[in-house]
Amino acid sequence: MINQLVKRIKETNAPIVVGLDPTLKLMPNFIKEKNFKEYGENLLGASKAIIEYNKGIVDAIADLVPCVKPQIAMYESFGIEGLIAFKETVDYCKKKGLLVIGDIKRGDIGSTSEAYAIGHLSGVEINGKKQEGFNEDFATVNPYLGIDGIKPFMDVCQKEKKGIFVLVKTSNPSSGEFQDRLIDGKPLYEHVAMKVAEWGDSLMGDSYSYVGAVVGATYPEMGKALRSVMPKAYILVPGYGAQGGTADGLRPFFNADGLGAIVNSSRGIIAAYQNEKYAKFGEAGYADAARQAVLDMKADINSIF
Amino acid sequence: MINQLVKRIKETNAPIVVGLDPTLKLMPNFIKEKNFKEYGENLLGASKAIIEYNKGIVDAIADLVPCVKPQIAMYESFGIEGLIAFKETVDYCKKKGLLVIGDIKRGDIGSTSEAYAIGHLSGVEINGKKQEGFNEDFATVNPYLGIDGIKPFMDVCQKEKKGIFVLVKTSNPSSGEFQDRLIDGKPLYEHVAMKVAEWGDSLMGDSYSYVGAVVGATYPEMGKALRSVMPKAYILVPGYGAQGGTADGLRPFFNADGLGAIVNSSRGIIAAYQNEKYAKFGEAGYADAARQAVLDMKADINSIF
Repeated sequence: MINQLVKRIKETNAPIVVGLDPTLKLMPNFIKEKNFKEYGENLLGASKAIIEYNKGIVDAIADLVPCVKPQIAMYESFGIEGLIAFKETVDYCKKKGLLVIGDIKRGDIGSTSEAYAIGHLSGVEINGKKQEGFNEDFATVNPYLGIDGIKPFMDVCQKEKKGIFVLVKTSNPSSGEFQDRLIDGKPLYEHVAMKVAEWGDSLMGDSYSYVGAVVGATYPEMGKALRSVMPKAYILVPGYGAQGGTADGLRPFFNADGLGAIVNSSRGIIAAYQNEKYAKFGEAGYADAARQAVLDMKADINSIF
Repeated sequence: MINQLVKRIKETNAPIVVGLDPTLKLMPNFIKEKNFKEYGENLLGASKAIIEYNKGIVDAIADLVPCVKPQIAMYESFGIEGLIAFKETVDYCKKKGLLVIGDIKRGDIGSTSEAYAIGHLSGVEINGKKQEGFNEDFATVNPYLGIDGIKPFMDVCQKEKKGIFVLVKTSNPSSGEFQDRLIDGKPLYEHVAMKVAEWGDSLMGDSYSYVGAVVGATYPEMGKALRSVMPKAYILVPGYGAQGGTADGLRPFFNADGLGAIVNSSRGIIAAYQNEKYAKFGEAGYADAARQAVLDMKADINSIF
């Protein structure tokens, strides 16, 4: 799947992943009103609204980007109904030819991580037949439990030719609370990065590993160091736009050939219509606004090469 | 909710939480066969089987213990249908008077952690009305992202009088890979524990904090140190039984009054019938075997006081 991702990034010339992180606040009112009227002002109505909202955006951007990244928390907050919207979003995106990174940040002891890996990147065996749960193409994982929590994901990735992105340095302001603490003279995130490189060596695609990393755009100087620690890891870079990351700050995350990193934007794309810059599209034009925001982001990022 | 937990532990004299972590391997064949026949050899059939299996165990143990801990990964591996079983299990346990710890180990940047907290410990607001997602009483959370990832859970806990258990030192063999690394002369897990104590001070119940910690039974010597670092944190202790933790090793996790810790057992209870010791119950008696295993665990743990 990492080979697919590299291929699609080259084809689209867009090292961009659109974060499908719907909330009621980001969603156009007309979509909420219509679905609440049809299905009720409840979890079902919200779930149906999310699906409509997402499909509108996906239709508008599917030819421009290689990849989307639904953040499962935004769906999980709506309980079962929300997770049905997650699943429907994953399926719809795949049907549209997009690769899907499930931003799930799971991680647990061995047998439990295996259950997550099966649920999200493979399928559970029932009397010898594989039954698919969510079946994303990639998943984000949390390294706090060490290799026990990562290995089951790697095993599933090897079998299914899928990929993971391990949290190394996250984009949030307090990410340094533990991640930046020095161990033997190096920050914890660098130790995690060294492990990502080591783990990834055993699971290589053509030029990049099945084991990637998450490094926040908000920390470009760390991006530079981490790029060299993990030369074969694709870096998923959140934090561009709304969280404060800039195109110039993205340079260190990429290799000289313009590969090696994929930059996420969520609110900046899916709620572009709420931004003054795209106000002319109006609420009804939220999908066109999202498309224009992707085009602008693509130009912005490509300006650094 | 922490006050409720302490009260129920005193009433039952059982500082025990039963891990409801169903898998097809642990489940009696007759339950699988019945449900696969009725609903199909698919995710739905598995989900229905899980619900029946769990209800049998819950009915057999509800008067003995204060609390259960469903591990959401085991349900998530069956996709949406599995999560419906999770939700039904949570609801059923609460109806039976059990407190429910959602073992979800979530953690993300602020707005995303908030979505998880809302989904699992509160409810999402839709046009001013709260709509409940999963609504457990407690949740486990991952600290790798720092306070940004924890604070939204704490805010929801304060509002809803619920609680969290922060991963400090996990029970798995490779937990030391990052957690044991020394920072300023102290292992990372101790730094996390100091933060848990600090965070918890601002969110106190009568005698213990809403902010608890997870420390594996497999590391008793660390339990001792961590007990004193976090005097007001309830410690959720996985790893007893199947993973190798012993009753004697549990002593350091408790305070002198026998409070301060709650010990989890999953396989050792829910699949007791597969253990030679409880073979006489047979597959059909899996629930009675679970009850006997709880009674034996209770005697074992109380022997240390």
